[in-house]
Amino acid sequence: MKLATLKRGGRDGTLVVVSRDLGRCRTVGDVAGTLQQAIDDWDTAAPALQRAFETLDRGADDGVAGRQTMPFDPAACHSPLPRAYQWADGSAYVNHVELVRRARGSEMPPSFWTDPLMYQGGSDSFVGPRDPIRAISVDWGIDLEAEVAVVTGDVAMGASPERCAGAIRLLMLVNDVSLRNLIPAELAKGFGFFQSKPASAFSPVAATPDELGDAWRDGKVHRPLVVHVNGELFGRPDAGTDMVFDFPRLLAHAAATRDLEAGSIIGSGTVSNKQGGLHGSSIRNGGVGYCCVAEVRMYETIENGKPQTPYLQFGDTVRIEMLDAANRSIFGAIEQRVERHSA
Amino acid sequence: MKLATLKRGGRDGTLVVVSRDLGRCRTVGDVAGTLQQAIDDWDTAAPALQRAFETLDRGADDGVAGRQTMPFDPAACHSPLPRAYQWADGSAYVNHVELVRRARGSEMPPSFWTDPLMYQGGSDSFVGPRDPIRAISVDWGIDLEAEVAVVTGDVAMGASPERCAGAIRLLMLVNDVSLRNLIPAELAKGFGFFQSKPASAFSPVAATPDELGDAWRDGKVHRPLVVHVNGELFGRPDAGTDMVFDFPRLLAHAAATRDLEAGSIIGSGTVSNKQGGLHGSSIRNGGVGYCCVAEVRMYETIENGKPQTPYLQFGDTVRIEMLDAANRSIFGAIEQRVERHSA
Repeated sequence: MKLATLKRGGRDGTLVVVSRDLGRCRTVGDVAGTLQQAIDDWDTAAPALQRAFETLDRGADDGVAGRQTMPFDPAACHSPLPRAYQWADGSAYVNHVELVRRARGSEMPPSFWTDPLMYQGGSDSFVGPRDPIRAISVDWGIDLEAEVAVVTGDVAMGASPERCAGAIRLLMLVNDVSLRNLIPAELAKGFGFFQSKPASAFSPVAATPDELGDAWRDGKVHRPLVVHVNGELFGRPDAGTDMVFDFPRLLAHAAATRDLEAGSIIGSGTVSNKQGGLHGSSIRNGGVGYCCVAEVRMYETIENGKPQTPYLQFGDTVRIEMLDAANRSIFGAIEQRVERHSA
Repeated sequence: MKLATLKRGGRDGTLVVVSRDLGRCRTVGDVAGTLQQAIDDWDTAAPALQRAFETLDRGADDGVAGRQTMPFDPAACHSPLPRAYQWADGSAYVNHVELVRRARGSEMPPSFWTDPLMYQGGSDSFVGPRDPIRAISVDWGIDLEAEVAVVTGDVAMGASPERCAGAIRLLMLVNDVSLRNLIPAELAKGFGFFQSKPASAFSPVAATPDELGDAWRDGKVHRPLVVHVNGELFGRPDAGTDMVFDFPRLLAHAAATRDLEAGSIIGSGTVSNKQGGLHGSSIRNGGVGYCCVAEVRMYETIENGKPQTPYLQFGDTVRIEMLDAANRSIFGAIEQRVERHSA
């Protein structure tokens, strides 16, 4: 089934089921008012939501009092979880990490191929899929990071990847915005990202894994992640390729020393495929391009000594989407414009 | 006023007002069922909660239908926010950070005195103030970290410390458990803490700043934080001394590039006072002792070449409390026992 959260109805919005073609949606307040409520009590809520979804998808009226049916408008959506109790982001596409290091002239520790890298992100205040990326200054080095993420059920401390696989409730896309110019000084302090990771935005729709059919296998999403910047195709790397740690493995990493509570969001890290250098990686030359500006800048730095492509400027737009084999949008598109924020 | 959360009533528990002497409590579901609900709508909820608190504290019946009054039992409490949308922890007692570095033989960058250090913690699944510290192995190097924390209202991106000061809703204590032996390898990966920071526990009671009277001034709590380990006094450093960054400054740091949503918890970092070395710092010799085991181990390392005091073992107990000038517990005590968890 497909679920979304309309902005109306308070901080956590209003949960709706969405038809497969993203054409219509229906409130289901009699089952769960918000997505977190559904996740909190998934075993009870999921079958009822699934029935509501199937009925809507067939175009039928389900006759349940109080439910409202309407055209689905991604611009009316918040992120599926407008705020969450956890957002932890892996770096499963190790190729991306290796490029970062090479561009800096440093070696990546070999353990990065066997031990997942993960950071704890801020989850109190996500923005909606069509909300602006707000920043006080472009000197911050504003960058997109297009990723896939899962929403979990409860996971007990020390759970194996096999058990974690069974706790994956929903899939969605995320734009994990990074402030590149704030990262070096912040990481040098030793405590990880904080100011360099502002509010993330998620796709309008979260889908259960079965909605992806064959594209969900081995704990990975095997579809290209399509990124446009200012209306131009910027990247379409396959999310199932070069993902060194699958989602169950990332969950097990997150749960190694503590329980994960239902509604935790675990991200894949920036999707990135291994490619043949700057020339071969560009969309124009038949490459799959990039899911962040930093990656093309790394190729530029490695090959030309310095980056040329600028980070995002005020007014720039970003679009992140994933299409199924028949070219239909699975999650709806994240579409954000970079805007100046005055403090 | 003083607030607490009973474990009953679901994942977010049940909000109660607690009498000043921590003797009795009363449910206030007609105002807000959970603390997060109260924080979400503070301007409306706070005056009604304050009235309920004052009535209870006077020992009066307020005659509101549905409210239940009962003896206050810290063992029945969850952390005031059993799960939160944000837990960000500063390192405001820079003395502690400097000792860590000196014990490692490295210099602390001078910027640490002017630019707060802060990490993003996991907030999806706190444990209660009397719940065990669960760990799979003592080889993890289990340590307490006794701290003060605030719960915020909404804070806009770029807010000044002055504006942040007005967004401090509640104060409480926290045991920010650390797995010391996992920290070096994790920080070396560059993305900050994750597995090395398991679930934190908070004091049974959260109090509005006015409850502390004069002890809350300059954005700091001016009272000793009293720590016992296995029933023995381990530390009583003053939380208002050597706190280089006050809470408004920590909030402004957290809000520099993004909004903070109501219910965010911001911690002070391990409370630590500057002291004259290993001998002078110990409780036995009239020192104020420590709020974590690591600190005495740092003094031992600096003076004797290696640490002697072990980290916490299975069965060890920790108690963290703050008393007012008349020796009454302000927040109730965090009391935890270290227990083995079988995955």
